[in-house]
Amino acid sequence: MSITKNEIKFIKSLNQKKFRQQEQLFLVEGIKGIREFLDSEFELYQLFATDAIFNAETKLISEKDLQRISALKTANTALAVFRMPQPKPITESSLVLALDDVRDPGNMGTIIRLCDWFGIEQLICSLETVDCFNPKVVQATMGSLTRVQIVYTDLEAYLEESKLEIYGTFMNGSSIYSEALPKKGIIVMGNEANGISSTIENLVHKKIGIPQFGNLKATESLNVATATAIVLSAFKGR
Amino acid sequence: MSITKNEIKFIKSLNQKKFRQQEQLFLVEGIKGIREFLDSEFELYQLFATDAIFNAETKLISEKDLQRISALKTANTALAVFRMPQPKPITESSLVLALDDVRDPGNMGTIIRLCDWFGIEQLICSLETVDCFNPKVVQATMGSLTRVQIVYTDLEAYLEESKLEIYGTFMNGSSIYSEALPKKGIIVMGNEANGISSTIENLVHKKIGIPQFGNLKATESLNVATATAIVLSAFKGR
Repeated sequence: MSITKNEIKFIKSLNQKKFRQQEQLFLVEGIKGIREFLDSEFELYQLFATDAIFNAETKLISEKDLQRISALKTANTALAVFRMPQPKPITESSLVLALDDVRDPGNMGTIIRLCDWFGIEQLICSLETVDCFNPKVVQATMGSLTRVQIVYTDLEAYLEESKLEIYGTFMNGSSIYSEALPKKGIIVMGNEANGISSTIENLVHKKIGIPQFGNLKATESLNVATATAIVLSAFKGR
Repeated sequence: MSITKNEIKFIKSLNQKKFRQQEQLFLVEGIKGIREFLDSEFELYQLFATDAIFNAETKLISEKDLQRISALKTANTALAVFRMPQPKPITESSLVLALDDVRDPGNMGTIIRLCDWFGIEQLICSLETVDCFNPKVVQATMGSLTRVQIVYTDLEAYLEESKLEIYGTFMNGSSIYSEALPKKGIIVMGNEANGISSTIENLVHKKIGIPQFGNLKATESLNVATATAIVLSAFKGR
């Protein structure tokens, strides 16, 4: 079968947040990623592949057509369109990670994988945080997106209403290695360039940080994804 | 002044490891990065900039010429050529990080930044590990490259001769949260796809790992840079 002009236009539109929001659909590329979504609670909307390798209704297309709809440099066998899940209510039963305007898709992907690894079931994102259904994020999550519940909300309002203790990471926060870290609470990570915004800073109960062991000349901060790895490890690994 | 054809050819050649090795020179782009190298023990070889903003001999060139020698999509004010440092002898006085064929420049850059942060002074790399003077690595290190000593060597021979205890990270290694981790030793991190090779595995005294807290369906491993962050934090942060 050949792919239609309208199909190409429709799929390409899903690279933009506006159209993903409007259609409540998003793209997954590659065999491995698509398998993980097919095996999850996510609902398939449409599947294009160069071979009938999936146990799902597939529109078979040529390599050339696949490349036309792919956002990858080299398209990889299949491209799927999935429906976004219905938002679930936020629960406050365990550790929650909150992101205050994380913008980089690669960082977001790594953070979602870390939530999956450390059993953080809920990731609360400010409205300015990069869309988790951005194709680059989907690619970087390696399927973790199927297991971590992600909620976009007014972060300030959420934190104001929450009854959990709120931890925020700051360069000058008290050491994660000496603070008593609880099993329940909210951990806030900030934006790549500016850290946690002052509005959110005012809502933080405890400022924590990762002490620097190296040369004092090194004033660079850690990348937010790396910092999240270290902070989650400190909360969970004891 | 205008840039010559030979200069363009020469600078572009330094994007390749072969020519960097031959000339013992490497590239640094952008004001911030160049400042860090100028403030370090590294020796400047040549500096091109669109403005005389550095306290060093500068060849002033146009924006257009800068773009011609830059590897960045949008060139950023300056490009410098620095000399590679003389290799220093390996010391065994504290924690050493060893990389067994890490291939991704982004991961390498993050790992060098982590060494800087956690005060790991020596990073020992197998000969197949990505070159630390690869422009993408230099870009990703944010100046940490000026503070961490990096040695490329036959990793097998180095580990065989070392008197330090050798820790290797494996999916099924014993938990970093329950193992007693020493102040001195070698920590080996493996390749992105294959982990630690079997030759190196045979030289490891203690297999350690990061336990997974999440859903058991999640079988993906952590990215090597993220895993390094967690492992170094566990060794240093106690």
